[in-house]
Amino acid sequence: MFSPLTKQLIEALHCLPGIGPKSAQRLTFQLLAKAGRPKGLALAQALQEALAQVDYCQRCRIYTEQPVCNHCRNPKRNHAILCVVESPADVVAIEETASYSGLYYVLHGHLSPLDGIGPQQIGIPDLLKRLQNESIEELVIATNPTMEGKATAYYISNHIDTHKTKCSRIAHGVPLGGELEYLDAGTLAHAFRLRTEIKAGETSVI
Amino acid sequence: MFSPLTKQLIEALHCLPGIGPKSAQRLTFQLLAKAGRPKGLALAQALQEALAQVDYCQRCRIYTEQPVCNHCRNPKRNHAILCVVESPADVVAIEETASYSGLYYVLHGHLSPLDGIGPQQIGIPDLLKRLQNESIEELVIATNPTMEGKATAYYISNHIDTHKTKCSRIAHGVPLGGELEYLDAGTLAHAFRLRTEIKAGETSVI
Repeated sequence: MFSPLTKQLIEALHCLPGIGPKSAQRLTFQLLAKAGRPKGLALAQALQEALAQVDYCQRCRIYTEQPVCNHCRNPKRNHAILCVVESPADVVAIEETASYSGLYYVLHGHLSPLDGIGPQQIGIPDLLKRLQNESIEELVIATNPTMEGKATAYYISNHIDTHKTKCSRIAHGVPLGGELEYLDAGTLAHAFRLRTEIKAGETSVI
Repeated sequence: MFSPLTKQLIEALHCLPGIGPKSAQRLTFQLLAKAGRPKGLALAQALQEALAQVDYCQRCRIYTEQPVCNHCRNPKRNHAILCVVESPADVVAIEETASYSGLYYVLHGHLSPLDGIGPQQIGIPDLLKRLQNESIEELVIATNPTMEGKATAYYISNHIDTHKTKCSRIAHGVPLGGELEYLDAGTLAHAFRLRTEIKAGETSVI
């Protein structure tokens, strides 16, 4: 029904995560339409440039086309704190809170032995080397609270010289604005187990 | 927060219809990841090839990289019936029904004088020329049942020599499997106005 090149474009778009066959078809028609062609050309060029030049930052493994990214070169950030996350999207989410000013370390995944992803594949040896050689005071582990994310956090925390570097985990519990009634039992149990004492006059934990 | 090339790719993806800023960001990270790079390269290549070579079929204005598309060159299709649709996606939808074997004519839009889209912009002069010069027995108008689609259907039907070419409109009414209770009043009123007589023994309209 489609011409070979049209079909090839539909299939290339359909390969993208989250784009189904219908969306791929709709996108193709819109990119081939007169009004959509400049967008299509811009996308092809942006893709080629990014794929040719963007790579991991040598220090934190965030995506950048320079050897070292803006974060790592920024003298205003606190170079004594390092936050370990699973993906660059997590960096974006944390930056949006504007409540963390340290550096990041992106694993690009989590430990998953069944898929052949060990410490080497997610850059943990480099991270440990950095912790040994640099004066980093605290490592904040912000991997996802999933089975794999927890295993990764456990592995990292177990391989750190905690005499040299403090190691912490971001808090997990009831999300702000959430209602206990609709929360899963696991999270609620965790929130009970790790409850924080309210000391006289101290209301910051409420 | 993002490197310039990463940002450029996010923006190029965000320009695509139906892809919001968050999806564009997620897609970018997945295309830049090691596993996603082949998909990204394939997409860039497919885009460039399609944009360079795919154009309107000279006869029916469907997308093809050849001068005349497969439909128009297919001797098995009925070349005496022509179906006018607004977009190539409509052709796909009609082909999926496997109940039409004639040819198509794609307008790539509808009359919309306020946006500067007149008959010339949607190829109506070429359509009328074809109807005059070729032996087409029936023109089935399948523009959308929207205000603009109806205006376009009205314009085309008004400019056809109905002595030479029969002109029809696909049926509009209650969709099969739909429930009257949930149908809009306009469609229901239309269905009443254009009710079909059931003749003795003839049940094909039921």
